[in-house]
Amino acid sequence: MNFGTVAILGPGLIGGSLALALAERSLADRLVIYARSAHALDAIRLAGVDAELTGNPSDALVTDVGSVKGSIDAALAPLLKDRALWIGSHPMAGSEQSGFVAARADLFEGAAVILTPTAQTKPEAQERAEKFWRALGGRLFILSPADHDMAVADISHVPHLLAALLVANANPKSLPLAAGGFRDTTRIASGSAELWTEILWANRDALARNCHAWAEQLAQVQRLFASGDEAAKSELFKLLENAQSVRSQLMDKKPFSPHSATFRP
Amino acid sequence: MNFGTVAILGPGLIGGSLALALAERSLADRLVIYARSAHALDAIRLAGVDAELTGNPSDALVTDVGSVKGSIDAALAPLLKDRALWIGSHPMAGSEQSGFVAARADLFEGAAVILTPTAQTKPEAQERAEKFWRALGGRLFILSPADHDMAVADISHVPHLLAALLVANANPKSLPLAAGGFRDTTRIASGSAELWTEILWANRDALARNCHAWAEQLAQVQRLFASGDEAAKSELFKLLENAQSVRSQLMDKKPFSPHSATFRP
Repeated sequence: MNFGTVAILGPGLIGGSLALALAERSLADRLVIYARSAHALDAIRLAGVDAELTGNPSDALVTDVGSVKGSIDAALAPLLKDRALWIGSHPMAGSEQSGFVAARADLFEGAAVILTPTAQTKPEAQERAEKFWRALGGRLFILSPADHDMAVADISHVPHLLAALLVANANPKSLPLAAGGFRDTTRIASGSAELWTEILWANRDALARNCHAWAEQLAQVQRLFASGDEAAKSELFKLLENAQSVRSQLMDKKPFSPHSATFRP
Repeated sequence: MNFGTVAILGPGLIGGSLALALAERSLADRLVIYARSAHALDAIRLAGVDAELTGNPSDALVTDVGSVKGSIDAALAPLLKDRALWIGSHPMAGSEQSGFVAARADLFEGAAVILTPTAQTKPEAQERAEKFWRALGGRLFILSPADHDMAVADISHVPHLLAALLVANANPKSLPLAAGGFRDTTRIASGSAELWTEILWANRDALARNCHAWAEQLAQVQRLFASGDEAAKSELFKLLENAQSVRSQLMDKKPFSPHSATFRP
């Protein structure tokens, strides 16, 4: 399989991993990488990856790797209409680290990759994007931009926000007491504040709804603890038992046999 | 160093690791292990650790490894008065796994260990407990039972509760999309629901206060997202930036050079 010319705009953790993975699998005849800084281009040269500048995206398949889809689709779809094939992509892969130094050729192996077509998306755009991500080992999911944004609020944005609040709320003097549980739970809070402000802000409508629901739920849990009766204790047990059962079914390691699936929430 | 006879009541993850660590370091002449089930005793025999039953705790130093200290101290201190030296201990070590199969001889190396003396604690109890945990590689902290319970609410119990709620609140159809961040943030939710119900319930006064504060805070964060103005966005950035900075200073690996410290919140 070969995708001809692939242009990567921004060779950070995700874009850099893409470049490494495409090169390792010989999936592109020509690899074009945009970087804002000379420093970033140097890092790519040092890694032995050729960087080449290109012109405009006419006739190309254009996709992105951003964490929020409604806003990017609203901005790009009209711009690219009749100029390029456009579809949003979101590989659910990354780490609290950033930049090309953190890039890995196997980052997308077994990772969920969400495509976000709309009624305006040309079928060819989706077909080519599916082939592209599948060739890199991704497990494909198809969601509308709005459904995507609600799903990632649950499984990525709210966890990030809570991790940040856990760190911010802990008495600094208690932190030396923290064990592995706290470190795992809050690891993502060490991710770039700049990047995550933009991500959470772009998804603020979904997050406002989520925060409202969480505030109400925590007020309920407070009432369980405050009541102190046996019925409240068994409600707490049911909550933890359900979470234990669901969480135990989540794999802790990424599966390395790529396959695809479609999904509607 | 030698602690003479050491009796372990309940050889699960913590008690089992203690037995393995004491044996590996030859820190006890005689190791006595209580277990409720024949199955647990078999596991200890298979691991090559001698298990011996003992009588009452008269004249011994009695400590525990529980996660909540106010209630255990209130229950045990009067029982053991004039019969044994008593002080509460809480090694901040463990995992989402449980039982002797999960025990490790190095579990306490570099781990924070909190001792919870009260005005009634005999100085000899504290001295002996400090020596004991230090010999196993623990970093010692001294807190009152009440201060302990507030600190662990912040760094252990609230994180557990939020992890469980994150799992319970996520649309089950979104879970296959989850990446490493979600898995890390929620790992502790796969811990025993039975055990964690008892822990959270024993600390319910502190948790009721915490849940109240969290509910108010999430309502505030909701207002930030809902307002959508630049001042709100920069408040969000400040929150994430503070969390990033604090979290980045937390070591992700336990230090393996044991040392001690004292601590008052």
